[in-house]
Amino acid sequence: VIFLDLGGNGPGLIAPDKASVPALDRGLLYGDGIFETMRSEGGQVPLLPLHLERLARSAGVLALPLPSSEMLSTATLAVVRSIPEPCQAIRLTVTRGVSAQRGYAPPELSRHTLLISAAPYRPPTEPIRLCTASSRIYPGSPTWQHKSLSALDKVMARAEAARAGCDEALLLNTEGRVVEASSANLFVRRGDRWYTPSLAEGCLPGVMRRQVIRLSQAAETRIDPADLHTADAVYLTNALMGCLPVVQIDHRSLPIRPLPRWSADLFTLG
Amino acid sequence: VIFLDLGGNGPGLIAPDKASVPALDRGLLYGDGIFETMRSEGGQVPLLPLHLERLARSAGVLALPLPSSEMLSTATLAVVRSIPEPCQAIRLTVTRGVSAQRGYAPPELSRHTLLISAAPYRPPTEPIRLCTASSRIYPGSPTWQHKSLSALDKVMARAEAARAGCDEALLLNTEGRVVEASSANLFVRRGDRWYTPSLAEGCLPGVMRRQVIRLSQAAETRIDPADLHTADAVYLTNALMGCLPVVQIDHRSLPIRPLPRWSADLFTLG
Repeated sequence: VIFLDLGGNGPGLIAPDKASVPALDRGLLYGDGIFETMRSEGGQVPLLPLHLERLARSAGVLALPLPSSEMLSTATLAVVRSIPEPCQAIRLTVTRGVSAQRGYAPPELSRHTLLISAAPYRPPTEPIRLCTASSRIYPGSPTWQHKSLSALDKVMARAEAARAGCDEALLLNTEGRVVEASSANLFVRRGDRWYTPSLAEGCLPGVMRRQVIRLSQAAETRIDPADLHTADAVYLTNALMGCLPVVQIDHRSLPIRPLPRWSADLFTLG
Repeated sequence: VIFLDLGGNGPGLIAPDKASVPALDRGLLYGDGIFETMRSEGGQVPLLPLHLERLARSAGVLALPLPSSEMLSTATLAVVRSIPEPCQAIRLTVTRGVSAQRGYAPPELSRHTLLISAAPYRPPTEPIRLCTASSRIYPGSPTWQHKSLSALDKVMARAEAARAGCDEALLLNTEGRVVEASSANLFVRRGDRWYTPSLAEGCLPGVMRRQVIRLSQAAETRIDPADLHTADAVYLTNALMGCLPVVQIDHRSLPIRPLPRWSADLFTLG
């Protein structure tokens, strides 16, 4: 089931194979939009307020039109509750909509296109094999810290990881330091201290990153690739899978440790 | 008029307000696709072979599915000839299509979504005011040299230029050197010698760039922002407008010179 709001005949729930967006939507033409990926459990989306907060912040910076949080919250829960699967991956997409004018320059006024879809989700249980991507993140990029539709770099990083027989791509910045994975933030444990790359390194301000920093009291810092091999453990985190250990980086093994005690609270608001 | 090939009921010409793509197309969800912008004149697209050559090269590198050049050529001309305007901006978009699996990782097999649209076009005649964008191009990026749907950086650079009262955004690379404008390549004249940033600087291999290098014998080199102010003239080029002089960079004036003699041949194949 997909919730679509294109501003035409009014929003509504539609079967996925019937749901479509205008061919001249700027989301398709220019990757001009943002999205959130969320996890639902038993008809609830526990971290929904954090997701909507980040979405609103990005929409503000990028001057994207955005429906109210109340509307987004109601529509998201309508999608979740329309299908029986207890655990779902929910995707909420907002674009700058259709514009009469051609070209990259965004129109001064626009109406959003909103799309919310759900897919059954089973959290992975196997530890992750990482592979360093050849692309680099420029920390000063004005768009990298937003979860945008312009994600071809991440698509290609994942294709590169798959070719190397790995599950995920490790992304470094143009300074050569560790930033994140293509769809997850990264945390390192040394003894009983936790560390994660600071936002200034170019990483996405993940909703689960925020939860893990709160629970683990992790320090935001600089991390070199070599630091990952001397750490006691390395984890990836995102709002779908929660927290999973990394077992290998570029085919070099890392020690696997049990998940930290606080991992039971990852999907609980603080 | 839009030509749409989604693989379902077969391709065809559709009115723009009726044309739509599946909501779960990877072009929309992840900016996972490429496009060409071409100029038609009197029912012809003079540089079509160069555009289709670049499109095929990018599709190869990004492992995107692509119809044959014959099919693309026929469909493009069908769109051009279905509307009476003598000069049009034609956009050809190819995405990785709809995939059953969620996430950035591209499916091993996919079927393209193809979209060709036309809009009336009147080439601009006013010289261009440039404004340096705050974003930087990383020359090693595996995706920047492709004209991809992941163009939010360019959208934001144009919004930044518009706020500064300028027409176009000048993009530098992470080394601080000149690369290109958001939708045009850049050429510099010193005496009777021509220069343009080399592809290694991170610029898009523009179809018009290729034409201008052939006609002007321009050298591909490194260009610093300060070099633009000591040049005899600076021009922007793309496959829609051809060649236009730059009159201002960051509100500092440049001398305006007449267009070079070879500019009459920009839309003629060599």
